[in-house]
Amino acid sequence: MFQLIDGKATSTTIKDEIAEEVIQLVKNGGKVPHLAAILVGHDGASETYVASKERSCSKVGFISTVIRLEDSITETELLEKVNEINKDPDIDGLIVQLPLPKHINEQKVIEAILPEKDVDGFHPVNVGKMVIGLPGFISATPAGILELLKRYRIKTSGKSCVVIGRSNIVGKPMSILLSQKTEFGNATVTLCHSRTPNLKEVCAQADIIIAALGKAEFLTADMVKEGAVVIDVGITRVKSEKTKSGWKLLGDVKFDEVAPKCSYITPVPGGVGPMTIVSLLRNTLLASKKEIYKGIS
Amino acid sequence: MFQLIDGKATSTTIKDEIAEEVIQLVKNGGKVPHLAAILVGHDGASETYVASKERSCSKVGFISTVIRLEDSITETELLEKVNEINKDPDIDGLIVQLPLPKHINEQKVIEAILPEKDVDGFHPVNVGKMVIGLPGFISATPAGILELLKRYRIKTSGKSCVVIGRSNIVGKPMSILLSQKTEFGNATVTLCHSRTPNLKEVCAQADIIIAALGKAEFLTADMVKEGAVVIDVGITRVKSEKTKSGWKLLGDVKFDEVAPKCSYITPVPGGVGPMTIVSLLRNTLLASKKEIYKGIS
Repeated sequence: MFQLIDGKATSTTIKDEIAEEVIQLVKNGGKVPHLAAILVGHDGASETYVASKERSCSKVGFISTVIRLEDSITETELLEKVNEINKDPDIDGLIVQLPLPKHINEQKVIEAILPEKDVDGFHPVNVGKMVIGLPGFISATPAGILELLKRYRIKTSGKSCVVIGRSNIVGKPMSILLSQKTEFGNATVTLCHSRTPNLKEVCAQADIIIAALGKAEFLTADMVKEGAVVIDVGITRVKSEKTKSGWKLLGDVKFDEVAPKCSYITPVPGGVGPMTIVSLLRNTLLASKKEIYKGIS
Repeated sequence: MFQLIDGKATSTTIKDEIAEEVIQLVKNGGKVPHLAAILVGHDGASETYVASKERSCSKVGFISTVIRLEDSITETELLEKVNEINKDPDIDGLIVQLPLPKHINEQKVIEAILPEKDVDGFHPVNVGKMVIGLPGFISATPAGILELLKRYRIKTSGKSCVVIGRSNIVGKPMSILLSQKTEFGNATVTLCHSRTPNLKEVCAQADIIIAALGKAEFLTADMVKEGAVVIDVGITRVKSEKTKSGWKLLGDVKFDEVAPKCSYITPVPGGVGPMTIVSLLRNTLLASKKEIYKGIS
């Protein structure tokens, strides 16, 4: 019988832990962590994400500020805004909700954020530090997955692990983190992608599969070894006649047929998703405590 | 019959190309590329490496400067020296020969080098840019291996590749570069290391093996598939009664028994080694032309 990895419950536990830590911090004269989010334009999904981040901040006792900018803003104006927040000693973490309007160079904006406030972990300095094995902000989804593995005491050392998808924010960092010489690393990782010809065979040998390619119900039972751990990062919204809302969320894993073969599996929704925001909160707390970039304010 | 990948000949060809480019650059009123190397103390191997880099610079028409510092130098003094070179507009590239004396934090020194002068590609910004797929300086050994694959037109796309060894300067960047969505990437890469239990089986399935673990003659014939491409990054100096000098260089591959199974294989010496210096020259040329960090001087 497989065990469900409950990301929702785990994220609630961690939020409670963070809230408790904030109370203690403030009691000891420390500052309340403050996350700022820049939201450009009125994209529906972006609005939802930012609102959810605000709610989570409030839940753990952080201050959150949303800076709303019209999508007519120029790149220069946006960079100035980022720079202003960089200099604001009260703001610990800054995220810029992506995607940005097409006339703005996203990478330029990401690189304008001070690495010590880059709680999304997208800045090249933070990516580089992660690869080298130095303290830095790790991007939210890989950090959330590592936390789930830790909390469920799933051994990675010596295991064979397949990561499907080579995105900059999930697949690549995940493959590196699981390979590192750390307690929840030390796995032999194979990074698969659209050019992997024998994906089925590769997956079928894996002890741990991280599915992060963004194709609904891609991973089927024949691709999974008996007893494997399956982590589903995908979230695709599809139409459904069975739900009130008229749509439902699907992961990259065909859950019903894959789950019975697994030792552990994450559901969608309620698996990796809720852990992503928790990682962002954790990074903001670390930024506020200056635990990663010491002595920098 | 296997084909030998001749790194020595290839490096000579590329040095000629670089030398020709320097002549053209100067003809067109451009500046002569200038590489500075800081050498702390009197370690024999470090002296040899730096001397060899100087010779290579001179061969392609670069200016090279070696800054020799006693190993009694303090970290602060060394950082000041780095900062001085950072500000010198005449110097395009700066390398600090490692290892440094134990009282100096190597990572701190590496991070003090301006990313746009970090032609070794060790700065977190350059590592991060490489992972994200942005232009940046790629560390010399992985860049040299990619260049060999290109020059010998060895297809990587869709191939299964095993990298043995997870060092920051070879194994990790190599695994990322071969996975990238590029012409000489698109491989399905498995990164193996000391905690990989079934290394023999993993290697025996690979189309391409990059051996970078630093154990003399580790890779044996039973670990290699018929027709595989084998790239040997290891260099271990061992005693020998058969040579005049009393020692010889061994790679990570047991060449005599592995070579007959290969389609392509690099020898040691004369394989990857000579390509490493060529990559450093190439990075210095790019730094001088400001092709990677545009508009920054």
